[in-house]
Formats: sequence, C-alpha cells, structure tokens
Amino acid sequence: MANTESEAVGVSQAAELRALDMAHVLHPHAVVGQPPEPFIVDSAHGAVLRDIHGDEYLDGTCGLWQCAVGHGRPELAQVAADQMRQLEFYASFWGFSNPPAIRLAQRLARIAPPGLDSVFFTNGGSEGNETAIKLARLAWPTQGNPDRNVILSRQGGYHGVAGGATAATGLPAFHEGFGPLPPGFVYLSKPHARRLGENAADVLIDELEQTISEIGPERIAAFIGEPLLGVGGMVPPPPHYWERLQNVLRKHGILLIVDEIVTAFGRLGYWFGCERYGIAPDIVVTAKGLSSGYVPMGAVLIGQRVMGMLEGAPFRHGFTYNGHPVGAAVSLTNLDIIESEGLLQRSRTLGARILEALKPLEDEPTVFEVRGEGLAFGLELELEDVTPVVEAARREGVLVRGTGPNIVMSPPLVLTDAQADHLVTAVTKAVRSL
Amino acid sequence: MANTESEAVGVSQAAELRALDMAHVLHPHAVVGQPPEPFIVDSAHGAVLRDIHGDEYLDGTCGLWQCAVGHGRPELAQVAADQMRQLEFYASFWGFSNPPAIRLAQRLARIAPPGLDSVFFTNGGSEGNETAIKLARLAWPTQGNPDRNVILSRQGGYHGVAGGATAATGLPAFHEGFGPLPPGFVYLSKPHARRLGENAADVLIDELEQTISEIGPERIAAFIGEPLLGVGGMVPPPPHYWERLQNVLRKHGILLIVDEIVTAFGRLGYWFGCERYGIAPDIVVTAKGLSSGYVPMGAVLIGQRVMGMLEGAPFRHGFTYNGHPVGAAVSLTNLDIIESEGLLQRSRTLGARILEALKPLEDEPTVFEVRGEGLAFGLELELEDVTPVVEAARREGVLVRGTGPNIVMSPPLVLTDAQADHLVTAVTKAVRSL
Repeated sequence: MANTESEAVGVSQAAELRALDMAHVLHPHAVVGQPPEPFIVDSAHGAVLRDIHGDEYLDGTCGLWQCAVGHGRPELAQVAADQMRQLEFYASFWGFSNPPAIRLAQRLARIAPPGLDSVFFTNGGSEGNETAIKLARLAWPTQGNPDRNVILSRQGGYHGVAGGATAATGLPAFHEGFGPLPPGFVYLSKPHARRLGENAADVLIDELEQTISEIGPERIAAFIGEPLLGVGGMVPPPPHYWERLQNVLRKHGILLIVDEIVTAFGRLGYWFGCERYGIAPDIVVTAKGLSSGYVPMGAVLIGQRVMGMLEGAPFRHGFTYNGHPVGAAVSLTNLDIIESEGLLQRSRTLGARILEALKPLEDEPTVFEVRGEGLAFGLELELEDVTPVVEAARREGVLVRGTGPNIVMSPPLVLTDAQADHLVTAVTKAVRSL
Repeated sequence: MANTESEAVGVSQAAELRALDMAHVLHPHAVVGQPPEPFIVDSAHGAVLRDIHGDEYLDGTCGLWQCAVGHGRPELAQVAADQMRQLEFYASFWGFSNPPAIRLAQRLARIAPPGLDSVFFTNGGSEGNETAIKLARLAWPTQGNPDRNVILSRQGGYHGVAGGATAATGLPAFHEGFGPLPPGFVYLSKPHARRLGENAADVLIDELEQTISEIGPERIAAFIGEPLLGVGGMVPPPPHYWERLQNVLRKHGILLIVDEIVTAFGRLGYWFGCERYGIAPDIVVTAKGLSSGYVPMGAVLIGQRVMGMLEGAPFRHGFTYNGHPVGAAVSLTNLDIIESEGLLQRSRTLGARILEALKPLEDEPTVFEVRGEGLAFGLELELEDVTPVVEAARREGVLVRGTGPNIVMSPPLVLTDAQADHLVTAVTKAVRSL
C-alpha cells in the first residue's frame, strides 16, 4: 500500500534496522544462514499495521491469531503500567498469589464450559499443552494405572513446539531433526469433511474405535484436539464429529483435552469453541486471545474429573511467570472489552458476511475449498506453494498467511465493515491473479 | 513483620481473595485437592513486598530469581505502556520483526560471550532450554549425523518443565508420573565440591570421560549445565571444573549449552556466569533477569559454530511471542538500569559482604555448608526438611526459599546495605532457632 504519511523512521535508520535484523536475529521458521528480508512493523492500531517505511497494511491474520481486541489499545497500556507500578510480578509457586491472577481465575471459571473450575496459568500455548499433557498423564498413575500414558492426536493438528507439544503436533515437518521425541503419541486422520467425503464422521469414528481397540483403552491417557484446526488450515470439524467422538472417549474413560489456543475468546463467535460444537472437555488450553497478546499469557482450565483423579498428587510443574499480575490485569480488561464491545456477536455476524463474500472463489479452478467459522477462514488451493497468493494480497495492502496449500485468515474482532470489504477484495484479486 | 500502615485491601476483600484462590487456582508445586494457605502479594517496591493484610517482607529470593533491578520501577512501567500504545505485539515468525527486538538482539550480541552473535527470543527459561536442545540436536543431522542426539546433563541440574527441559533436569521428583519422557538424556554427578572432596574436579572429569567413552562421542550432541547450580542449591562449581570440562567436550566435538537463566545479568556479579568461570559456550540460554520479570522474556544466544553447522537447515520452531516488542523494550531499559546503577559491581561487593556475614553459621551443628557467589547464596543444612527455617525467617520478615536440604537466597541487586543486614540477621536467627 502506498506510503500515506511521513515515514515512520528515517531512511538510514530503516537500513540499519534491516542490517541488524539480518545479522543478529534468528527468526522462527527461517532457514539458518539465509536471513529473510525483514518486514519491520513499527506501529499498529486496530486492524492496521504500519511498517518502518510508513506503509500501511490490513492485519488479516491478527498476527498469530492473538490480537482479538485490535492493536495499540491505550486502555490496556494503562492497565499494564498501573499494575507494573503496584506489583509487576511475584511468583505464584506454592501458596504465593496475587489479586489479578485470582480475579482472572474466578472470571475464567465463570465463562468456561461447565465444571472447568480450576485454573493453571502459563505464558502461552506450548506451555499450556505441556501442562495439559502432564496433567492427563499424571492422573493415571495417581489412579494406580502407571502404563496409561498414550496421547491420541491428529494429523494436521498443531499443539506447539515444546517437547510434548511437538510430539502431539501431527505435522511431520515440525518433528524432523529434533528427535528422539517423547514416545506415546498416536496420530489419527485429519478431520477434513471435504477431503473425506459425505460420511467423514463415520470414517473418523470408525478409525478412532479401531485405534483404541488396537492400542487397548487401558493404555490411553487422553485425546487432544483443536475444535477447528488452526495451522492445519482453519478446518471446521465434520458435522456431528465432536459429539460422536466424545461419546467414544467417554465409553473408554479416555480424557479429552481441547486445545482452544486459537479458538477461545471470540474467534469462532463464542467464548469457547466448545460451546459452538457442543464439546464437554476435561481440560481446555487457552492463550493468545486471553490477553490479546499485549503480555504473554495463557491459562489451562481443568475440570472436576481430572482434579478428582489427581487428588493428593503433588503437581511438580510450573513456569516462572505463572499467574503474572500484569498479564492477568491486562487479560481481565481484555475480556471486559470483548464483552462490552459485543465482539462475540460481531465475530459471528461479520464472519458470516465475509465467508459469504469469499464463497464465490470456489468457482475458480485453483480453489479447492472456501471454509470458515466466526472470524476464522481457510481457503484451500490446488497448489503446493501458496506464496504467490500471499504476496499478491500483500501488494493489495493485506497480510494473510499461507500454511501448506491453505490461505488462512483471522482478522482482529474489531475489524470494521470497510476493512472486511478490503480483505475480501484483496484476497479475491490475489487468487484470481494466478 | 508488623503491619506498618493501613491494610492494603479491606478485611472482607482479603477473605474473599483467599477463598477464591483456594477454590480456583491450581498453583505450581501444590498438592492437588489440598490448596495451600495463600500468601497474597498486593504490592512491591525495591526489595520489599507487601501482602494484602498490609504486612511487609524483605524479598530474599527475588521471586524466582527474576527481579534484578527490584520491584515496581516506574521507568519500566512507562516504557511498557509507551511501547504498547505504539505496537503491543506483532509476530516475529519468518521475516516479521520490530525495532525493540532488533535493538535487544544487537545489545545482547554486544555483551554476550565472544562469538554469540545470533539471538532467538523466547518467553522464559523452559522455552529457552527447549530451543537450545532442539538447535543442538538439529545441528547433527544437518551435518549428516542423524544418530548424534544424546544430551549430557547433571544430577541436581534444573532446566525447566517443558518436555525436553524436564528430561534434562536431573532432579528425579520432576520426572515422576509424567513419562514417558523424551529418550536420549544421560545424567552425570552433581558437581558439588564439599560433597565430593578435595579432588572433586578430578572425580567429575573422570566420570565425564568414562561416560563419553561408554556412550560413544559420535552419539553425543551436547552437554547442558548451569554455571552455578540454582534449584540444586546455589552450588558454585569446583575449582577448574569448567575449564577442564570444556576441554574434554571440545576434544570430542560435543556442543556446550550453558543454562544462564538464573545466573546472567548480574546475579554472579557479571553480565554472564560464563565470564566468571571462563566458559566459552556454543549456546547460552537466558530469561529472568533479562527483563527483571516485568514482562515474560528470554533469549537464546547462539554461537558461530552452531550457526555454521545449521547452515541451510529450516528451523521449524518458535513460540508465538518470540521477539515481543514490549518485553524487548522493557529488557533494553532494564539492561540500561543494571549498567547505569552499577549493579554488576554491587552484586560482587555486597554479595561478598553477605557471604562473609553468613559464614559463621558453618559452626552450627545443623549447617553443612554456607556458599555463594555474587548475590546467590546457598545454606545447606543437615536436615531433610528445611521448612522450619523458611518459616522462622518469615516470622523475622524475610522470605527465603527451601530446595531439598538447602536454604537459597538471591535478593534483588538493588538491596540496600540495611536490607542486607536484615537478611543476614533474620536468616542467622532462623537457623539458630532450630
């Protein structure tokens, strides 16, 4: 997009920042020794980013899904500064605690799916999935079943990059060269209705039943899955999938961990994706939208069954910044904003409008599927590499993300109607430019 | 300590917070179903904490070692708020970047041990050790050695609670019930001079040589260790240990990961513990003191040998909040404060004074050893459970921590002389009360 105002930083400083980035920063997912051309973001407000050259872009992905209430909100800056001056941080290990963390736990217990009354705080999604897997595994030896430790996961599922979380991720590229990974993870098929055909749920549930019978239910600790696949391409579940899946798990006593790192706090139009799909989880993992990313923050919500199974067990686990007062204070205000600005409803109505406007792209020969739920959209192309589409959209002033054959979009929930139109127009033009 | 001013929150609110904490918060290291009596911190300034009843305590541990520059500093609150209003966060995946993260990488490369010019950001220590272990493991298959993946670690070493980090931790309690953990971790003896006797370094180096020859150097990716053991009891290394250890590693081409999560940024009186002990690492992991905990932030510093070995490899790893602009801006100002207030020097001189004042406790029959370096102290007792000493110190208005048979202390680097005297007096009285 054209430079609309004076440049954000001077030309020489921009060149210096570029050189320093390439010299000193190893970026996630970069190729070592081949530093990518940096895209240096200098400021951001609402759904608009500005780079160091002063060029503006519409944030079509919400960064990495985190920015529910939009960028640069002064009320969150104010809350963070006030809390830092009062108590920036003290540990929450053992009995130590602080008022914002306690209030946030109370608030989460109130809006969470029924029975998820206990909260374990983290700094982000990977830590959350590590925590959930540890809780589920520890529950079984505590109940006298030391060999019940297998975790069922799914191809196309993404659960982060810590040890157990990497192992749970069913995207092989994330495993390569990092082994040996922790054993005990088994991957089911990707739950993708359009690929599996009309009886997708039948196929998936049959496979689940068969896998359980092969491994033996007495060896399986838990199943972990996202309500709607995120990195896997924003793929909503096949109809009746979750309902039938949890019936099978329940029959065998297998715990259900729902990874809502991407989906909670309005992305799908509800506080939790569990509400949307009628899921009754034992553990829910959250992060991202909890604080809208202003401070790294996550929370694992734990149900009564798991707490009961673990009764009397010491939980020797915890990351330094558990219950961070600044993260908690920011999260409380962030949840207030989602509520007071009606962003759950906005996600549903604006999301439906965008999905409808994108649907005609399914007539393009390069497009396999246009899908979405709330403000989460996936555009699956008949291409191995979708980089040209990502780049064409960027030339139209919109940032979207490619994952495998998919273009994924998840704009801030505060996207305006005009910005929604811009997103649709830019992506449509980008796809048609192929 | 007596209530010195009006209560921080009202009596009924304090009771409510206590009840909510016990109902909804699962604390790290708590026993499930037996919520600990909460100690709710309401505010903190410098080295002093105040709880919700208005009672004040000297922070003898710096929380969990994180608070180098002291609590509640308004200049850090200001920097955080300014950065949040400008750009609270955008991803640093692929080529995305932001000015504070770039400047922090530049700054770290400047103060780091020689050759550690590349920086990979994290939100904390566990993520850092996961990253370091992944880098070290990936380096070998990239060099055509897919089976070189064993990580040497040490009993008494603590490297966090994510998957690989848990496995690297040589404290068995942290493994129980969470298995199976990732394979490929081997534990050497705890490097504790007083326990091993005068020829401690000989014993440890012999063991290292023998372990390498049993496993085969062609199977060993890296060694990971803390310069001074933290959770293991603040144990400085035996004389000449590091120098001899790294000679052995170098001879066999084994990579050296130094976990400086506790020790970097002044804790031992230097920017890095590596300086203090003459260590030339391949990778250094930092967190805690980097931001003084105001925002969760960590950085993995990577040397030229590792970058060279990884040349051309995609590094498919990265946590959402990599390169967080607010964390980076706060960290830059935090490093400025450490420099401008002379806190490295302060750590050395005040630390030596405190250690000298604590040393006479070695004459007590219950005391096995008094040790320290900079503002890190360990008091090893002839007791299984040191809780009575921790509680006696608390009655004297000082918070210290028990780990195994050790009382560990690591006050903020801004501790005043009078506060140092209070720490010594309280701990001395607590030990003598046994």
